[in-house]
Amino acid sequence: MKTKDIHILILSILTVLTTTVSIAQNQVKSVVQESDFNGKWALVVHGGAGNMDRNSMPAEKIETIRSKIAAALQLGGKALEDGGSALDAVELVVRYLEDEPEFNAGRGAVLNVEGHPEMDASIMDGKTGKAGAIAGVQRIKNPVTAARRVMEQTPHVMLIGEGAERFAREQGLELADSAWFVTPGRRADWERWKMKNRNSNLKNPDQKEGKGTVGAVALDRNGNLAAATSTGGMTGKMPGRIGDSPVIGAGTWADNKTCAISATGHGEFFIRNVVAYDIAARMEYQRLSLGESAHRVIMEKLIQQGGTGGVIGVDHLGNITMTFNTTGMIRGSVSSQDSLQVKIFK
Amino acid sequence: MKTKDIHILILSILTVLTTTVSIAQNQVKSVVQESDFNGKWALVVHGGAGNMDRNSMPAEKIETIRSKIAAALQLGGKALEDGGSALDAVELVVRYLEDEPEFNAGRGAVLNVEGHPEMDASIMDGKTGKAGAIAGVQRIKNPVTAARRVMEQTPHVMLIGEGAERFAREQGLELADSAWFVTPGRRADWERWKMKNRNSNLKNPDQKEGKGTVGAVALDRNGNLAAATSTGGMTGKMPGRIGDSPVIGAGTWADNKTCAISATGHGEFFIRNVVAYDIAARMEYQRLSLGESAHRVIMEKLIQQGGTGGVIGVDHLGNITMTFNTTGMIRGSVSSQDSLQVKIFK
Repeated sequence: MKTKDIHILILSILTVLTTTVSIAQNQVKSVVQESDFNGKWALVVHGGAGNMDRNSMPAEKIETIRSKIAAALQLGGKALEDGGSALDAVELVVRYLEDEPEFNAGRGAVLNVEGHPEMDASIMDGKTGKAGAIAGVQRIKNPVTAARRVMEQTPHVMLIGEGAERFAREQGLELADSAWFVTPGRRADWERWKMKNRNSNLKNPDQKEGKGTVGAVALDRNGNLAAATSTGGMTGKMPGRIGDSPVIGAGTWADNKTCAISATGHGEFFIRNVVAYDIAARMEYQRLSLGESAHRVIMEKLIQQGGTGGVIGVDHLGNITMTFNTTGMIRGSVSSQDSLQVKIFK
Repeated sequence: MKTKDIHILILSILTVLTTTVSIAQNQVKSVVQESDFNGKWALVVHGGAGNMDRNSMPAEKIETIRSKIAAALQLGGKALEDGGSALDAVELVVRYLEDEPEFNAGRGAVLNVEGHPEMDASIMDGKTGKAGAIAGVQRIKNPVTAARRVMEQTPHVMLIGEGAERFAREQGLELADSAWFVTPGRRADWERWKMKNRNSNLKNPDQKEGKGTVGAVALDRNGNLAAATSTGGMTGKMPGRIGDSPVIGAGTWADNKTCAISATGHGEFFIRNVVAYDIAARMEYQRLSLGESAHRVIMEKLIQQGGTGGVIGVDHLGNITMTFNTTGMIRGSVSSQDSLQVKIFK
């Protein structure tokens, strides 16, 4: 072996060694990056914001609502704990709350001016930036699942009315007639609203009844965010009215770079202020924290305009927020770091 | 007269003088502030973005489109020149383009998978932050006017489908049946699309046919901004699909603080990126100019995702932008400073 060959051999060995060390370093780096997320997950749920009075709400009702929000959190928390995706968790939680008649979404949705439920829902995947929404549907049992199908099974983001219902049927989703959705309580709310507005032109929806919208936001163990929102809107709304819940950027937002948001409140203000996306934009462009962004939008901007409501949010590090400018927001959270909590009033 | 009285008299005279001078100063100041706007107005119009080929588009068609965009600009420009509001100007211009069958809005709207037109429109007032939208309507001759009525005559922002049509009828707006909307050209587009997709499940809307959406943004002499957008969406879309045009923040935005925007393009990308509001948010939070903001959203963010289309915009100082990532966007502008111009290709 010539000296030159030995030199080349040594050089080759050195190159291989350097490459190996470099790969090993990258692997360590990648493990460290993953461990930022591994084992860390968070879930926040809301059941609507509104002006709720601790003293006038029956203790039994408070107990029922608390237990159902807790059950929703347990359900979604288990999925996330087991390594499930944020997208699956928010759909699961919102489906559960849609089925519970205490909330203004799916079964138990409030009634429009003509006494019919009309439901809206949306979902967004922070990993891909994809989103799906349905609006103004009367017969889809689980609007949030239909919204997810729009996202995954169509080239579109938003389907409304009969077109959305036909799509849901094609997808094999369960439909139901009005009798399944309308609870005696919602019928009574509607009768009361109608009596109160009998001398007006009935273009005076009850904004205080807006409470009961449901939503969930989650961070999963892979660092992915997702958000979902579902609602029946407001008692006495005009037929065909849609609020912020199915509007991507207004009622729902998720982007792995910033945060996942689900809103509840007086929808028209949330649309006009692009509330959910505005919180993300302030995080990205002004370098504000999730909590500070939510505060500026809900406690400053909306209050100045008289817009009532709130949001839940989680950022890509697992920080959460539950910010509202009403006397109450049905809400709860659970995460890999913190135990389950449920609250209704301030 | 006592010395004390003389002192009081002098003091009174001085007070009156000081107050008068102060009022006069304020008046001068107010005149100066108004003169920032007085005589200054701007109008930008689009007739849709898409991949258009200068060589394959018939010269006659180019001429017709150019002359109609010019007519729309003259109409709106005259209104603004005469001191009309930005809100009135954008409604007027969009109404005019809805009536012209060359554009994909109102008469001449493209057809959905089943061969029906389904139209969306929205309008926003930058002075008040109020907005109105309608979506998925089949019979309202001028969707933009219905959107304005939603803004001004209801407590809501967004009405869809039959509910929106009933509201339009109550408001005395003109309705028409399918025969009025569907032009031979659109029927032919639809037949061609259907033939091309006969072996697919027809869930493949023609995104290239999205062109023809119309929109206008304006600054009036009082410094108020407004925006409006109207569309038939895309040929072969699913029944009930709505795009970005009626979504406040996605296809339309106006806020006196920042800018007015109307978008056109592949609507799903515009919804998922909250395009119109994102441009305003970058101006407000990152202190970017209108042109720079529009560039970052349309030429960077959307291109990275494969989202085609463009926007027109005007800011509160009268700066305008016409930014698109396709080979063409039908567009034009006129202002108190600059003469009327119309362009189609890059």
